[in-house]
Amino acid sequence: MCVMSEESAIYIGRKPVMSYVLAVIRAFNDLGAEAVTLKARGRAISKAVDVAELSRRSFLEDVEVSGIEIGSEQVSTPEGGSRGVSTIAITLKKKA
Amino acid sequence: MCVMSEESAIYIGRKPVMSYVLAVIRAFNDLGAEAVTLKARGRAISKAVDVAELSRRSFLEDVEVSGIEIGSEQVSTPEGGSRGVSTIAITLKKKA
Repeated sequence: MCVMSEESAIYIGRKPVMSYVLAVIRAFNDLGAEAVTLKARGRAISKAVDVAELSRRSFLEDVEVSGIEIGSEQVSTPEGGSRGVSTIAITLKKKA
Repeated sequence: MCVMSEESAIYIGRKPVMSYVLAVIRAFNDLGAEAVTLKARGRAISKAVDVAELSRRSFLEDVEVSGIEIGSEQVSTPEGGSRGVSTIAITLKKKA
């Protein structure tokens, strides 16, 4: 387990949505984060939006979306080339 | 073909990414839109980000992301119930 600072990033991958929702709840409630950024790329982007929406609507009513950024990254392919993949970063913050 | 106003919405569904990129290019270049909003829900959210990134990076260098919103909608299921689905709206705008 890493030491959690006041800002925290959670990388969305292949686990079920609820695993990440629980990580968000832990970051705010147990570890004292003021902000949590959900990061995802490719097909996991949809899941990151699900995690953000479920977290703030169903579990953390004092948390809101404070920023969303999209971008692109180059990833190398097994064939030795590279291709672009879209990314998202959704920041959740405690309401003032 | 609908009459295009200065603001235009494109709903991202099951077609390939390039179909929507072409629709974005047409909206800006042929139909004179000042802003185009990409709307998607569920798994199509990732594709909406791909469309936005590919459009502004590869085809429309005078266009930028001016806003991103996420939300939730209730959709009815074939069984007669309803479930939540996440949504995204990404607005692309001509640079000032």
